Amino acid sequence: MQTFQIASTRNDALQSALLQRINQKTKPLGALGRLEALALQLGLIQNCEQPSLQQQTMLVFAADHGIVAAGVSPYPQAVTAQMVLNFLNGGAAINVFARQHDFKLHVIDSGVNAVFEPHPLLIDAKLGMGTASFLRQPAMTAEDCTLAISRGAEIARDAIAQGSNVLALGEMGIGNTSSASCLMSVLCNLPLHQCVGRGTGLSDKGLDHKLAVLTNALQTHHVDASNPLQALAVFGGFEIAMMVGALLAGAEARATLLIDGFIATAALLVAAKLYPQVLDYCVFAHCSDESGHSKMLEHLKAQPLLHLSLRLGEGTGAVLAFPLLQSAVAFLNEMASFESAGVSEKTP
Amino acid sequence: MQTFQIASTRNDALQSALLQRINQKTKPLGALGRLEALALQLGLIQNCEQPSLQQQTMLVFAADHGIVAAGVSPYPQAVTAQMVLNFLNGGAAINVFARQHDFKLHVIDSGVNAVFEPHPLLIDAKLGMGTASFLRQPAMTAEDCTLAISRGAEIARDAIAQGSNVLALGEMGIGNTSSASCLMSVLCNLPLHQCVGRGTGLSDKGLDHKLAVLTNALQTHHVDASNPLQALAVFGGFEIAMMVGALLAGAEARATLLIDGFIATAALLVAAKLYPQVLDYCVFAHCSDESGHSKMLEHLKAQPLLHLSLRLGEGTGAVLAFPLLQSAVAFLNEMASFESAGVSEKTP
Repeated sequence: MQTFQIASTRNDALQSALLQRINQKTKPLGALGRLEALALQLGLIQNCEQPSLQQQTMLVFAADHGIVAAGVSPYPQAVTAQMVLNFLNGGAAINVFARQHDFKLHVIDSGVNAVFEPHPLLIDAKLGMGTASFLRQPAMTAEDCTLAISRGAEIARDAIAQGSNVLALGEMGIGNTSSASCLMSVLCNLPLHQCVGRGTGLSDKGLDHKLAVLTNALQTHHVDASNPLQALAVFGGFEIAMMVGALLAGAEARATLLIDGFIATAALLVAAKLYPQVLDYCVFAHCSDESGHSKMLEHLKAQPLLHLSLRLGEGTGAVLAFPLLQSAVAFLNEMASFESAGVSEKTP
Repeated sequence: MQTFQIASTRNDALQSALLQRINQKTKPLGALGRLEALALQLGLIQNCEQPSLQQQTMLVFAADHGIVAAGVSPYPQAVTAQMVLNFLNGGAAINVFARQHDFKLHVIDSGVNAVFEPHPLLIDAKLGMGTASFLRQPAMTAEDCTLAISRGAEIARDAIAQGSNVLALGEMGIGNTSSASCLMSVLCNLPLHQCVGRGTGLSDKGLDHKLAVLTNALQTHHVDASNPLQALAVFGGFEIAMMVGALLAGAEARATLLIDGFIATAALLVAAKLYPQVLDYCVFAHCSDESGHSKMLEHLKAQPLLHLSLRLGEGTGAVLAFPLLQSAVAFLNEMASFESAGVSEKTP
């Protein structure tokens, strides 16, 4: 796998300067709560006192999953391709929210089991017609895994080259909560039942079946947290592997990474095992209703901005949180200080 | 006090129609979580299947409080007037966020201890140079209380007449967490220590003092939850009384009411004691870091959209939550259905 040069955002002098600016705004100390921490983080990421958000971009990676043949999803595999078309036609939730918040949207065919006509929103990065079922064999080869990471990195670099400094990653892939649950169990060292949820809406019986299937799969493969790339290849998801590459290339370029739900965070688990500094660049957008996501976030010591009980993926949580990043930057750059506004400070 | 004609938003046929529209969107059932409940509520408030948000308006009511002479705030009273000037000059947090989200902003002098030059953003509704200290006497007379409610109602009606169907209420008033805490204790029937917090940033010692002062005041007056208007006059706040009127007139006109933090919610406590149906029109924006607000929200069975540890008031939490209302309306009106997008539904 290629290497990435990811710097820590730590900068004590800049941090002091940013805190001083924040504390001189016309408000009681700390009264803007999480927005203050966000303003500080965005300043550190951009390595300046006046951060600005440029051409926010949503990359939705889509792929199919061999594991769906084992009956782990209530939706047929065909829905992945149908939803890709829905994205291209502008009718999905992510389209609506991306339009609302001026995101540039790209849909990446990472490995959907269908062939698409060229389309301005579509990036063809297809690695196959879906992964193999990881019930008995790895979802993908080590070579394909490396290739997926490279392609994901390239796509992120292209978006940044086109002027974006905020990347949000979304995904679509019937069956991909199964991949994410296995990655989580291995990389967070948690029992599988804490990592498996209802995905798009399994019944109790469906959930039991999914847990049994994944327990079986985990026992077949001998993978542990010391080898995140192996875990990624085995439990796969071409879209997840591409997201890993996009996260690492985004952090390398000092972009702000807006982290969505369960699948996107699973990709981050892999990325952060490889390069822990990537976490400095991550803003956690939303805690999903998918069982397991809150524990995954805990593992990363992450506090998401929103708790809206979404469980849709596509990057929806990330886009919905974006105005809060804009608010953080806006108060930092636009609010008056006690001095400039002639407002009395707190009596000692 | 004038009467208000506030209808319940309940409409079973419309509710079924809205739920059907929501459930046919291309997403798993319920996958947009709180946004789905919000879309339903906005449809019911506007009594139609395709709600739309028009000219969102922020009304910031400002007033001074006699109780500050008892040392309940770490900021001097002059800060109320200074912050009003900061609002008029566009330098406060609420200005920044209102600009971001295209709110029309009005600043209402409800009774600030200062005289302001006329200004396009300023509405002069002054009832005095601040309330009396409620340590020994009511903060305002019953007549002034009624007048404040009428003026608040008139201001809300004007905003609606100018094309707004979303009203957010904010406030500024050094000392007004003391008023709000006493109102909460009386109207929620909760011990004062559960209702009193640090406001703009009291020390432990300051907090103890504030609790002692307010305990004393509560014992002086014999007020209970059965007389919300009396409680309002006694513990006062001209800005709080005007917010009560604005809430009631807003609900009467079927506007969506975006409820901010501790003070705005205290005004709603009064309004909802008078007209419980007002709650149908309320979207709870944010749970403040001010101790007591979460219990106040519990009392109203309210689940706020945001938890950002803000404790600034001014209406900041309300404005920050607004894009979520826009998202709820947008997905309801713009997303494709399973049928229109040709996406397979869940297998039975």
